[in-house]
Amino acid sequence: MKKNSPPLSVKPSKLTEYLKNLALLTKNTGHLFLIAGDQKLEHLNSDFVGPQIAPEDNDPEHFFRIAAASNGGVLATHLGLISKYGANYRNLPYIVKINGKTNLGPNEEKDSSLPLWSVAEIVNFKKQSGLKIGAIGYTLYLGGKYEAQMLAEAAKAIYEAHQAGLLAILWVYPRGKNVKEEDIHTIAGGAGVAACLDADFVKIKYPYGGKDKKQTALKFQEATAAAGRTKVICVGGSKQPAKEILAFLKLQLEIGQSSGLAIGRNLHQRPLEEATRLAQAISAIILKNASLKEAENIYLNKKTAAKKGTGKFLGLF
Amino acid sequence: MKKNSPPLSVKPSKLTEYLKNLALLTKNTGHLFLIAGDQKLEHLNSDFVGPQIAPEDNDPEHFFRIAAASNGGVLATHLGLISKYGANYRNLPYIVKINGKTNLGPNEEKDSSLPLWSVAEIVNFKKQSGLKIGAIGYTLYLGGKYEAQMLAEAAKAIYEAHQAGLLAILWVYPRGKNVKEEDIHTIAGGAGVAACLDADFVKIKYPYGGKDKKQTALKFQEATAAAGRTKVICVGGSKQPAKEILAFLKLQLEIGQSSGLAIGRNLHQRPLEEATRLAQAISAIILKNASLKEAENIYLNKKTAAKKGTGKFLGLF
Amino acid sequence: MKKNSPPLSVKPSKLTEYLKNLALLTKNTGHLFLIAGDQKLEHLNSDFVGPQIAPEDNDPEHFFRIAAASNGGVLATHLGLISKYGANYRNLPYIVKINGKTNLGPNEEKDSSLPLWSVAEIVNFKKQSGLKIGAIGYTLYLGGKYEAQMLAEAAKAIYEAHQAGLLAILWVYPRGKNVKEEDIHTIAGGAGVAACLDADFVKIKYPYGGKDKKQTALKFQEATAAAGRTKVICVGGSKQPAKEILAFLKLQLEIGQSSGLAIGRNLHQRPLEEATRLAQAISAIILKNASLKEAENIYLNKKTAAKKGTGKFLGLF
Amino acid sequence: MKKNSPPLSVKPSKLTEYLKNLALLTKNTGHLFLIAGDQKLEHLNSDFVGPQIAPEDNDPEHFFRIAAASNGGVLATHLGLISKYGANYRNLPYIVKINGKTNLGPNEEKDSSLPLWSVAEIVNFKKQSGLKIGAIGYTLYLGGKYEAQMLAEAAKAIYEAHQAGLLAILWVYPRGKNVKEEDIHTIAGGAGVAACLDADFVKIKYPYGGKDKKQTALKFQEATAAAGRTKVICVGGSKQPAKEILAFLKLQLEIGQSSGLAIGRNLHQRPLEEATRLAQAISAIILKNASLKEAENIYLNKKTAAKKGTGKFLGLF
Amino acid sequence: MKKNSPPLSVKPSKLTEYLKNLALLTKNTGHLFLIAGDQKLEHLNSDFVGPQIAPEDNDPEHFFRIAAASNGGVLATHLGLISKYGANYRNLPYIVKINGKTNLGPNEEKDSSLPLWSVAEIVNFKKQSGLKIGAIGYTLYLGGKYEAQMLAEAAKAIYEAHQAGLLAILWVYPRGKNVKEEDIHTIAGGAGVAACLDADFVKIKYPYGGKDKKQTALKFQEATAAAGRTKVICVGGSKQPAKEILAFLKLQLEIGQSSGLAIGRNLHQRPLEEATRLAQAISAIILKNASLKEAENIYLNKKTAAKKGTGKFLGLF
Repeated sequence: MKKNSPPLSVKPSKLTEYLKNLALLTKNTGHLFLIAGDQKLEHLNSDFVGPQIAPEDNDPEHFFRIAAASNGGVLATHLGLISKYGANYRNLPYIVKINGKTNLGPNEEKDSSLPLWSVAEIVNFKKQSGLKIGAIGYTLYLGGKYEAQMLAEAAKAIYEAHQAGLLAILWVYPRGKNVKEEDIHTIAGGAGVAACLDADFVKIKYPYGGKDKKQTALKFQEATAAAGRTKVICVGGSKQPAKEILAFLKLQLEIGQSSGLAIGRNLHQRPLEEATRLAQAISAIILKNASLKEAENIYLNKKTAAKKGTGKFLGLF
Repeated sequence: MKKNSPPLSVKPSKLTEYLKNLALLTKNTGHLFLIAGDQKLEHLNSDFVGPQIAPEDNDPEHFFRIAAASNGGVLATHLGLISKYGANYRNLPYIVKINGKTNLGPNEEKDSSLPLWSVAEIVNFKKQSGLKIGAIGYTLYLGGKYEAQMLAEAAKAIYEAHQAGLLAILWVYPRGKNVKEEDIHTIAGGAGVAACLDADFVKIKYPYGGKDKKQTALKFQEATAAAGRTKVICVGGSKQPAKEILAFLKLQLEIGQSSGLAIGRNLHQRPLEEATRLAQAISAIILKNASLKEAENIYLNKKTAAKKGTGKFLGLF
Repeated sequence: MKKNSPPLSVKPSKLTEYLKNLALLTKNTGHLFLIAGDQKLEHLNSDFVGPQIAPEDNDPEHFFRIAAASNGGVLATHLGLISKYGANYRNLPYIVKINGKTNLGPNEEKDSSLPLWSVAEIVNFKKQSGLKIGAIGYTLYLGGKYEAQMLAEAAKAIYEAHQAGLLAILWVYPRGKNVKEEDIHTIAGGAGVAACLDADFVKIKYPYGGKDKKQTALKFQEATAAAGRTKVICVGGSKQPAKEILAFLKLQLEIGQSSGLAIGRNLHQRPLEEATRLAQAISAIILKNASLKEAENIYLNKKTAAKKGTGKFLGLF
Repeated sequence: MKKNSPPLSVKPSKLTEYLKNLALLTKNTGHLFLIAGDQKLEHLNSDFVGPQIAPEDNDPEHFFRIAAASNGGVLATHLGLISKYGANYRNLPYIVKINGKTNLGPNEEKDSSLPLWSVAEIVNFKKQSGLKIGAIGYTLYLGGKYEAQMLAEAAKAIYEAHQAGLLAILWVYPRGKNVKEEDIHTIAGGAGVAACLDADFVKIKYPYGGKDKKQTALKFQEATAAAGRTKVICVGGSKQPAKEILAFLKLQLEIGQSSGLAIGRNLHQRPLEEATRLAQAISAIILKNASLKEAENIYLNKKTAAKKGTGKFLGLF
Repeated sequence: MKKNSPPLSVKPSKLTEYLKNLALLTKNTGHLFLIAGDQKLEHLNSDFVGPQIAPEDNDPEHFFRIAAASNGGVLATHLGLISKYGANYRNLPYIVKINGKTNLGPNEEKDSSLPLWSVAEIVNFKKQSGLKIGAIGYTLYLGGKYEAQMLAEAAKAIYEAHQAGLLAILWVYPRGKNVKEEDIHTIAGGAGVAACLDADFVKIKYPYGGKDKKQTALKFQEATAAAGRTKVICVGGSKQPAKEILAFLKLQLEIGQSSGLAIGRNLHQRPLEEATRLAQAISAIILKNASLKEAENIYLNKKTAAKKGTGKFLGLF
């Protein structure tokens, strides 16, 4: 696992706060299990109602229920939902996603997304609500008409987050006519941009479609290396069987050198009971270094306690 | 009815003020009867002079006269009109609509609408005028060229309103070439966006054209569920007979789980006397849980006093 | 005449100042005689040099000379000219026009016009110069590419003017491909927008081309009614014989319910001596309720003193 | 010559400073001899290296050397050059050109030019450097896509300059598809815009190509009259023989009612020795009212001392 | 070598700081050896992984390792990397590149690049980190759609840097359809723009493709002369053999009158050991005036100590 020290852009008087937030989000492991709850804005209702989707998914509280039961997942969502449900989920760690856009517009415009809340507003919200907000999240589209503006907004948000002792997570997606979005070279480039911008974690695509899973994980090292001391978490991708998710995750962490997973639809489209089992299985792998077998048992609800991780974590904690 | 607690984005020192405003706007019911008076800007004079329109509708004071006689309606209009007539209508509760645009431009540009007044200006205006202003209103077009800008403006206005102890009402309209605006899925998506943005109420389209009215109201539950703890009020739609309006309203509230109605042309294009009877009938349903029959009698001016509501209100109040 | 009270957006501590400015601009009548001196920017030199134009019109001081001799006209022009000539015309009341554009660009761009000076700068200029500045003026184009921006700028300027105790005059022109600019319905719509924005006076087009002058004035009531408590002044239109101007004006005030006239080229393209006679005749009608005959005599320089107005003014003063 | 008083937009406490700067720039004559040194940005290296251009012109210091030897010329250039060479030319009066653009872009974009430095930055630079900075300069393109923005920036810069006791010089160029840039009517329109914006001096085109030079100068009166109390200086135009320059200048001042000249390439493309003689000849005409013969002798370096001007200067000084 | 004094835009109270930074960056020689580490953002991963590229180049720390071993090179890179690695490289002098963009977008948009960090943020970062940050860097594209904006941002950044006692380095690239980017005339024009903007150093293209290397270096004098007192450093160009790089560099400095070199891919695509030898050879030429032979020996690791420079440095130090 990547060894690192806190970025120098953290205001010295906020360093303790930063380390506390890092510990909060990663359960002292340096790894991050991010539960993505920003699709209500990003995809409107398409991800929440449909033939393969659990009916309870249409209630925004579904995110909170899953996260609360996940044994260590961090809920990343927009301020509005946290403002409305946070009082009932005071123990959850949060990443406040500060930008977002719908899937309605023409493609060109879809790459534009202004910050909806400033970091100062998030800091104020954290203080007055008393919630466990550990980071801000920002989605950055590269290659589009608004790249210049988005790079500037991302850099500013990260800087301000560090000044305030918060972490900053980037979602980075290279886009454009001739851009091969699934190409590892392109993905690695986006990871490098996150490093240049001082992000703590970067969420990037993972080439799930590769034929050989181990080879894919090996190739993915290009991206985790390019990110330098910025840690990489992989997107969960389109809906997959639970077993597949767990297997990929194990390879991403152990071979691909990733530092966690961001998962959305693969969790919340499942009924709460199943989503909980899956979340706990993922959590065991990411945060407790459980074996694939142990994780599968958690998902299948077999009462084999996950062994304590083998202590490979060599990071800050 | 939806049970909820105040959003955590309300500044703690303004919580009493927020609850007072919520009580003011909903008459302690949690339901909202919004009288839409923003069409003088939105539609120029087209809604105010014409063959089926009462001559008195061309006088902007018509809005105020109806609202004052409505037994609980809240007037939502632009600051200019409130500034000019408010001194004569000091008991009316107001929602100040902070953006708006005319119907003149090309469609693409019609989806752009900047805030005309900041929340700070509304707060200052409330203080110096002493008027009963309980909320700001903002129209959000999704899917257009200016979506990113509008999302940001909406989020900012809501945040600032909550900081000041005001409520925030969103008008949300998904738009665009391939967008089916009347589709419940699309409508529900817009409602979910309002939840992500921390709106207190969201005004959305209602599919009035459906064949089976009960089925339509049932389907509408997708939207009210997607909105989570943000309450939904339906638009009044194009001109309909009074009886139809009341019947739809009853179904929206009881089956569709909505929390009120926003009505404009269906009120103000009628002469004051008739508009008053209709407004009082609507008010009885929304705020006093009157039966359809009772409401019809109010509209027909039969002196059957509306029975006190059956106490289904389980919300904050 | 319209009866009204000051807008509630006037800062209470500036109410006396506002009423003083209203009295200054309207000579305590509630009516406004606006001498438009903003064409040097709007039309470059086209209105100032030509075969039918008095040679002295090319000197910007011509505006000031006419206004000073007009018996009550208010000069509306840009800050630059007031800054250069104001020291010699300290008794003139002024409206500082805060935006403007030339007639050079493509039509689309012609509908864009940013504020050249902020209200704060006008207030500071008033204070340091000691000039009698009673209002700011803003031209608002509706229907164009920049409508959203202009609506926002107009609302802001009016709000700030009222906060400072100044009046705000809007020039409102609906524009666009399918917009019938001379249609009374369109004109009335623009007047209503001014009301929504809290303007004190709105300058709108008058359909001078109508066949029956009385009918036209009657139809114009749609616009004055739509403006609510915002007073309406008519544009002077293209060059007409003096007698025509006076006749139209009388009908506009008495039948059309307007509150004054804004006149530019019809005054300044005449030699000073004739412009003075015409201005005084206009002034007599607007501010002293002179009869058409009396006004014609003033224009013809016949020494029949205008009778004192018949006291129809029922407004604030 | 134009008689005038300082604009009322000058902050009263800065009036002495303003008058001092006016005296500095015009050597107490009210006339201005502006040495244009802004082409390094405007034209890149095209004006500085070439077959008809003195090799020393490629050194930016050439501007300073000429100005220092010119007997009264004011150097107008960008802040960067003044910052680098000013310490060696402390006695030179400066106009800091605050905007500019290159000649590379497509024509449409060439009409856009944002301020590079704010007036506050110029004021601070003046204070800390101790240099004799008397004015800011701004180039305004009318008729282009960015007209609205440029008008606003120009007005703001002039207002702020006057607040700080600095003068403001506008370069005004009407542009566009159907605009006849050399037409006196167009030129006069631009001059009038400068007056509306409160400029102290305006630099405009002069129709050098006219057949009859006296007639041209007479026609030019339209522009100087349209400018009102804003003084007019003519551009130097493309490269001409020295004798021509001097002859035109004399006619511009005496018949055309201009108040000076702005000269760039016609000076700096000459070797220092010749440029000095030409600058001194120009200076004698503008600032000392020398006869054409006297000026020619200065250029030809004949030791006939220029007689003291015949005292026609009737301006502020 | 160019003789100069500090720009007058340096705040007097920060002059000592400025001189200290100049000494830091140039090792008291007035020459600059810039190690360009901004391609991770500019070129994504294309410059860091490939057949001719050392595997270690994919780790962002590679930049730091080379710079630390270079004997005098200054690392120019984005804030994110400095924030993450700076604690381990406290003795390195840094130039913080404050803007940048990827190579993904359409060409037109590629010429847009907003500042990612303000100068105030850099100053704060320097203070809290204690790192040796001597300058900010900014890439300016001339001729594109965003030229006006970029010129303004560049001027502002330079001004603010000087106010804070930092140096400012510009990367200047003229662009556009009919622009010959390799033409010395065009290059010189860009250098002149940097002078107008008050840059301390300007990094420009060098026409490496010329047939006669000495002639090319002679021609390059046009650019160094046009830059006036702004010093010129040449870009390193595409990958070349080490010997070629050193030979070009010697000619650039001695004949072309340049003041240093900026080198990126030519260094970091080499393995650390070779990159170190090359960097030290370059450093010897730039900072110690080593002969070409001496430099080649350093590159070849022959233990001939570079003689002390022959003292041609006549600059500020």
